[in-house]
Amino acid sequence: MTTPLTLAQAACQAAPALGALSADVRNRALLCAAEALRAHREAIFEANRQDLARARAQNLAAPLLGRLRFDEAKLEGALRGLEALAALPDPLGRTLLATQLAPGLDLYRVSCPIGVIGVIFESRPDALVQIASLCLKSGNAVLLKGGSEADGTNRALFAAIQEAAVRCGMPAGAMGLLHTREDVGALLALDEYVDLIIPRGSNAFVRSIMDRSRIPVMGHAEGVCHVYVDAAADLDMAVSIAVDSKAQSVAVCNACETLLVHADIADAFLPRVAPAMAQAGVRLRGCERTRARIDCEPACEDDWRAEYLDYVLAVRVVDSLDAAIAHINRYGSGHTDCIVTGDEQAARRFLAEVDSADVFHNCSTRFADGYRFGLGAEVGIATGKLHARGPVGLDGLCTYKYKLLGSGQTVAPFVRGEAAFTHRPLHGPCPMEGE
Amino acid sequence: MTTPLTLAQAACQAAPALGALSADVRNRALLCAAEALRAHREAIFEANRQDLARARAQNLAAPLLGRLRFDEAKLEGALRGLEALAALPDPLGRTLLATQLAPGLDLYRVSCPIGVIGVIFESRPDALVQIASLCLKSGNAVLLKGGSEADGTNRALFAAIQEAAVRCGMPAGAMGLLHTREDVGALLALDEYVDLIIPRGSNAFVRSIMDRSRIPVMGHAEGVCHVYVDAAADLDMAVSIAVDSKAQSVAVCNACETLLVHADIADAFLPRVAPAMAQAGVRLRGCERTRARIDCEPACEDDWRAEYLDYVLAVRVVDSLDAAIAHINRYGSGHTDCIVTGDEQAARRFLAEVDSADVFHNCSTRFADGYRFGLGAEVGIATGKLHARGPVGLDGLCTYKYKLLGSGQTVAPFVRGEAAFTHRPLHGPCPMEGE
Repeated sequence: MTTPLTLAQAACQAAPALGALSADVRNRALLCAAEALRAHREAIFEANRQDLARARAQNLAAPLLGRLRFDEAKLEGALRGLEALAALPDPLGRTLLATQLAPGLDLYRVSCPIGVIGVIFESRPDALVQIASLCLKSGNAVLLKGGSEADGTNRALFAAIQEAAVRCGMPAGAMGLLHTREDVGALLALDEYVDLIIPRGSNAFVRSIMDRSRIPVMGHAEGVCHVYVDAAADLDMAVSIAVDSKAQSVAVCNACETLLVHADIADAFLPRVAPAMAQAGVRLRGCERTRARIDCEPACEDDWRAEYLDYVLAVRVVDSLDAAIAHINRYGSGHTDCIVTGDEQAARRFLAEVDSADVFHNCSTRFADGYRFGLGAEVGIATGKLHARGPVGLDGLCTYKYKLLGSGQTVAPFVRGEAAFTHRPLHGPCPMEGE
Repeated sequence: MTTPLTLAQAACQAAPALGALSADVRNRALLCAAEALRAHREAIFEANRQDLARARAQNLAAPLLGRLRFDEAKLEGALRGLEALAALPDPLGRTLLATQLAPGLDLYRVSCPIGVIGVIFESRPDALVQIASLCLKSGNAVLLKGGSEADGTNRALFAAIQEAAVRCGMPAGAMGLLHTREDVGALLALDEYVDLIIPRGSNAFVRSIMDRSRIPVMGHAEGVCHVYVDAAADLDMAVSIAVDSKAQSVAVCNACETLLVHADIADAFLPRVAPAMAQAGVRLRGCERTRARIDCEPACEDDWRAEYLDYVLAVRVVDSLDAAIAHINRYGSGHTDCIVTGDEQAARRFLAEVDSADVFHNCSTRFADGYRFGLGAEVGIATGKLHARGPVGLDGLCTYKYKLLGSGQTVAPFVRGEAAFTHRPLHGPCPMEGE
């Protein structure tokens, strides 16, 4: 019988061989998985129709039904994703540091998979394809738990991908599918076998996962992003960046939620940004000093912490660059914050002192995205400060190990002073990598 | 009044300015701290004499008294450490990735401090100097909690270092000293202010810290290290590496605890290694197949998991490279493991599939050390798999942020197809770094 424990043990056992597969084998497995999804399309669509019928019978809201749907268009998107992933450079076996410790004793820091990753995600079945394929590309075994309303679709997708990948040489235990809420509880207790948990959901969900497990958690958390319009800002640029950051798409974590305005330009800027926001359909909630200059709703303390994900923007007048930085470090979520200014010293200080994953100068917060950053595939955006930060690409799913290649060296002569360390940088990759 | 909460709030507030200090200022602060320790030597020695007197009155064991002692020699060691640290390259502001996203829109991944680090360490007062200085060099605010038996010495050392660093420009709140067991409990709950906990102590201590906090923990844990003598090993080299790995120093985490021997060479190797180990004072505990070949105590299941830190070595005969890898991945602690072999394919597989921070070919496990690896100063050795792994140098105390430098770009034209991403690699450092 498969339980979370047996699946985790199998994943743990499969992980070393999976991580040792060549890039060719892993890429071929991704392309075979795409073919298998195409071949099994009818069975997958049928499973999805049943999930949808059950969800409708349970009166799920229309947006949730939209997320649950897996149709021709979603399949085509998933297939394109698999093909793009196969074409990306290999994240494994990269030599990150190389040092000769002594003659004939060479040290290499080399990227390698993390091991076994547990991913808990929401209703969209296309997330299963994306996560399973990212883990395969990065050589990580994975235990997947999707939304229970999509369980039928997830089973069909999983079966097609797993069967194809195993046919190409992936160890059978390298992917496991969990089904119930109880499975999640069991997974969180398996710190002997699972190296990392990635929850994809709300901030409250991520925190509840962290509280329930001693396994490290890489969180995809909320975005309370800021645009700060400095005294030395170009006001046309500031209006354009503020509107794009807020309104280009509102229900996303990299949208701006609070606009900070330097007091010296508040008289000039606020009357210009207000009609532009109104035209974009955005309602403003301002501090007292904002409301002294433009007509808008009042903001309270809670507004500085709010992730509206809606056509609403908090606006605050601040006295200085320092006050802007302090506001962001106090109320922000460490996601993405932007300064608009022509003053390079102000920009430098903002970029150095704002403690966020992404700090931008003179451009929209909406650029904070793995694809736009050129990372290729994206796991999500991490607002924690360890391991990977900001948009997380394939290298966020990797760690490293040190490979030390000797010719019989012992430590005793170095301790006795008969041998000495050279610590010379080496050039070129670790000779133990590649075909 | 200073409490863990007020100290953590002060650290959190000081962190951005601390991280923005130039390398010059941070290095000068390290050298001033060295001078201050020299100037206050008599007060420090006097505080240490009182700690020692109290410890003797409480009948502390002799090795603990030795660790607690802070004398002329320990001071000189600490001063040399500070001077060496000041001379190391700056870990901050390094450009780790640079990509042009579009014309005039340049992305830089730049190393930066983690923020606020809590370090809980054992009785040695010299650890306080080392940890405080590593955090200062890497621009991190730090809350320190040493062993309570050394509290007087720690207060004297801390006062000298802090006063000197503040005089050189370090924000006053950037270093805090905690004193009691209750302080530790309070610290572990301050996840709003503290970004990372580094416990230095036993494996059980590290686990208890992890269980009590949702703050990420970077653990300096146990070392159950292996030497595997492959069928294709040079037997003289294997004896030499095994003896050095086990006996060069036994009470250290990178000492070998289990010797694995391929069945094909067990007849030739075991009778050669046994007298060499005996001569080094090492007692052997063997599996049945070992005991069929040499005279030694029997090993039981617990021996495969034992970190002896003593003149004792477990010995097991294995049938294959696969069996050796499986044994290490099952019983090892992910610290350091070595294969002795002339077969490059066997070495490649061992280095790829053994899931440890350090995987060595034909050299002693005792090389696993930050200084020997050429990392300069060392925080410790991490056996977790995220963020930093193996010997942790200054870069393990850093994270990164993305700095995106634009000239007014918004996302809307890219979404409408009127602008396109170029994603060209850039060369040279981020222009927002440096003086």
